[in-house]
Amino acid sequence: MAKQEDDFKKVISHAKEYGFIFPSSEIYDGLSAVYDYGQNGAELKNNIKQYWWKAMTQLNENIVGIDAAILMHPTTWKASGHVDAFNDPLIDNKDSKKRFRADVLIEDYCAKLEDKALKEIAKAKKRFGEAFDEAQFVSTNPKVLGYREKQKEILQRMAKSLDNNDLADVKALIEELEIADPDTGSKNWTDVRQFNLMFGTKLGASAENATDLYLRPETAQGIFVNFLNVQKTSRHKLPFGIAQIGKAFRNEIVARQFIFRMREFEQMEMQFFVPPGTELQFYEMWKEKRYKWHLALGLGEENYKFHDHEKLAHYANAAADIEFKFPFGFKELEGIHSRTDFDLSAHEKFSGRKIQYFDPERNESYVPYVVETSIGLDRMFLALFSHCLKDEVLEDGSSRTVLSLPPALAPVKAAILPLVKKDGLPEFAERIFNDLKYDFNIIFEEKDSIGKRYRRQDAIGTPFCITVDHDSLKDFTVTLRERDTMKQERVPVENLRQIIDKKVSFRNLLSKI
Amino acid sequence: MAKQEDDFKKVISHAKEYGFIFPSSEIYDGLSAVYDYGQNGAELKNNIKQYWWKAMTQLNENIVGIDAAILMHPTTWKASGHVDAFNDPLIDNKDSKKRFRADVLIEDYCAKLEDKALKEIAKAKKRFGEAFDEAQFVSTNPKVLGYREKQKEILQRMAKSLDNNDLADVKALIEELEIADPDTGSKNWTDVRQFNLMFGTKLGASAENATDLYLRPETAQGIFVNFLNVQKTSRHKLPFGIAQIGKAFRNEIVARQFIFRMREFEQMEMQFFVPPGTELQFYEMWKEKRYKWHLALGLGEENYKFHDHEKLAHYANAAADIEFKFPFGFKELEGIHSRTDFDLSAHEKFSGRKIQYFDPERNESYVPYVVETSIGLDRMFLALFSHCLKDEVLEDGSSRTVLSLPPALAPVKAAILPLVKKDGLPEFAERIFNDLKYDFNIIFEEKDSIGKRYRRQDAIGTPFCITVDHDSLKDFTVTLRERDTMKQERVPVENLRQIIDKKVSFRNLLSKI
Repeated sequence: MAKQEDDFKKVISHAKEYGFIFPSSEIYDGLSAVYDYGQNGAELKNNIKQYWWKAMTQLNENIVGIDAAILMHPTTWKASGHVDAFNDPLIDNKDSKKRFRADVLIEDYCAKLEDKALKEIAKAKKRFGEAFDEAQFVSTNPKVLGYREKQKEILQRMAKSLDNNDLADVKALIEELEIADPDTGSKNWTDVRQFNLMFGTKLGASAENATDLYLRPETAQGIFVNFLNVQKTSRHKLPFGIAQIGKAFRNEIVARQFIFRMREFEQMEMQFFVPPGTELQFYEMWKEKRYKWHLALGLGEENYKFHDHEKLAHYANAAADIEFKFPFGFKELEGIHSRTDFDLSAHEKFSGRKIQYFDPERNESYVPYVVETSIGLDRMFLALFSHCLKDEVLEDGSSRTVLSLPPALAPVKAAILPLVKKDGLPEFAERIFNDLKYDFNIIFEEKDSIGKRYRRQDAIGTPFCITVDHDSLKDFTVTLRERDTMKQERVPVENLRQIIDKKVSFRNLLSKI
Repeated sequence: MAKQEDDFKKVISHAKEYGFIFPSSEIYDGLSAVYDYGQNGAELKNNIKQYWWKAMTQLNENIVGIDAAILMHPTTWKASGHVDAFNDPLIDNKDSKKRFRADVLIEDYCAKLEDKALKEIAKAKKRFGEAFDEAQFVSTNPKVLGYREKQKEILQRMAKSLDNNDLADVKALIEELEIADPDTGSKNWTDVRQFNLMFGTKLGASAENATDLYLRPETAQGIFVNFLNVQKTSRHKLPFGIAQIGKAFRNEIVARQFIFRMREFEQMEMQFFVPPGTELQFYEMWKEKRYKWHLALGLGEENYKFHDHEKLAHYANAAADIEFKFPFGFKELEGIHSRTDFDLSAHEKFSGRKIQYFDPERNESYVPYVVETSIGLDRMFLALFSHCLKDEVLEDGSSRTVLSLPPALAPVKAAILPLVKKDGLPEFAERIFNDLKYDFNIIFEEKDSIGKRYRRQDAIGTPFCITVDHDSLKDFTVTLRERDTMKQERVPVENLRQIIDKKVSFRNLLSKI
């Protein structure tokens, strides 16, 4: 655990030190759970976007991309259910003035009961040694049974109360269990209230006649409301998909884990519209396709696992997460959901317009079913960044920090480094820069020793360093150093474009999907 | 004028019909002054972004890009002046309940006075014929002099009152001039109030302890607050620049002209940090560089003009617009501003942190000066789209609609069209699709006659149509049709990638800057 925390801290500090991620408005002490992408982070983020966008819209003849606005007509969020049901139950402590999620307080209480049960088991294990039969102990020991029965009872009662929106009973439960503010010990609680997670704003000039708007909490609805327009103007038959990348906003009470859960974040979502009855077959197809997309990055199959949802959201008839091994354990990276016709039907109802597709093969009109793939762009960034950041001990005993990003995603493709700042080397290096700049994002660096410059490029994941020395002026060759192997070879200047292109092209990733 | 309006209507309807731009949330009758980009619009918009981003960050060794959040610490907007001064003076008509900008009502009144003056001049011209000396008439005719003197007086008084925030006098002026609601004739006005154009929202769970936030009204401040972090981690010396593309929001009262003035829009801004005293030289450099960026698109030099600002914003010591000939006349497309050290100094003051650069050559620390280039992405889209949309009469007397976008920016690079839907032609075409899809956004279309398919591709600006016919199966050649010339030539399948790449590469644009 301590190792994990250390690793994660290192990720966060490296991200800042090397211009990947800064706390938002840091000169004003930051804005909680909002981050800015620096010069290397912006490039990496853009490259992830491109990889996803190309994989969706270029590789699939029947998927197109759109870019809908963040501000939408407010009825959208009535139809989607977000106005009524996108809530967290909150409670305030009157003494400490601190706010908590009521359900989390109760869950934490249950976690403590479980800790007690585990202690009993550990104690018994120590006492009985090799002879200990854990299964039998757990199913007969009255203390363990008691702790677990109690947990079950509490969680069932809470789930029922929340389902019935009986918030008074949730408060009663907190009081009966004598749950206290974990920091101050005070048990002086307010009532429990539902708090909607959407950010609100007002369109128009005055309080009287302004329209209440929301910052979209998900990008998917921007696709649903445009379904008819896109289908008609693109003339696609079902099945076909609409992809989108864009910002979404959630007023999370407890946002944490760096860019894993932010109040302002970016989603890459694709809604695949299919004939009713075929959705589960496409759901399986998309689970597989998305898994391949991840594997093509080469981070290792052991770092992913599927988690099939047991409890389904009201709109879904099948759902799974692709989990990734983050520095703080396996967590959701992407979701694949069979959303049925829930959203399009709701928009039909609330808008009063027919949102249907005429199927020439079935010779009938219907509301399409939807299979969704939804991935957090910032989470994807964190997955790549944290996995690829490595401390390596080299053969000579020295060490280096290297960010072994897939070359197609690296922020900078090559650094041009004149060995010394004189004798015409910078000028020669600049000519190479001016020749390559039309095709790649490259850097020109002449400060510090060549070793230091190599290390800096390793730390931001640059696949190639190109060193110009005195021989370069004579024979038009340079030293090309590769990031991962650190091997250096002498290559003609005229071959550089082709060598770099071959290594950093998106084709390398796309052709593996 | 009617012709202009017609042309503009055509632009708007073509944008919708061909999947470029849809009204936002159209099934709910739209959200005023917000638009969504459809499948072709999203691609065109992305390509414009790439052209700008590459021109900034790849071509200039000393410019890096960032991606700051939309939500920022609220003090940012105190420092920038937006909380106190980003206002429109509004007035309501009590009878019609309609809201107007008070300054626009007064300006419209003056425009009517000017119309009267112009009528007098026209009348005299008609009466005196060839002998008419307009200059003399204008400077002596008491009516014309009267109308113009009156206008000057009104506008001066309004400017003074607004500068002094004397809104009571602005209302008094409206009453003295007997200005009426243009629709209803009512003169029953409320007081004039200042209305801030920023969208507000609240961070946190309850009214009591929520933080008031704003949706950023410009992206520039996201660059200023990150100046230190970027400069230190990128180790750039002055002069150097930070580029950014992102959404901004303004609660405009009167938003209009399609995507020209929207409430949610996207900016492409670059702030260039320079030593004090050198700013006007870099201001001239950036005027020239940005002008070249526009000209490289090939829309014609006659469609651009510079407009130097006479009245400067409080933060600027020089400013100019690049205007473009939109369907509704020459209007601002991009601004180049010498912003002095206004923003960084304000953030120093409000944050209490030193925001300075140590200049090793001058051996002193100072707050850098800033030259900004700021272009509206949506306006750039409208400029390209409206200019490139053409009705052409062909040699045979028929006509076609063609969107002659620069090939690097075209949404779709090529369409693969099997001549007929049988005899193995679709399968052969699909093999070509599968070979080219890794490198380009291409379309596969087999519906309708080949002529109709060509026309549809012309209408969305696709540079190439690739037709597969029966000969293709025998000799591995296809017919390549070029959008602008409509010339068709027979080419080997194996040459396609190279031919397309040569035509659509960003290098074509970037190398002209």
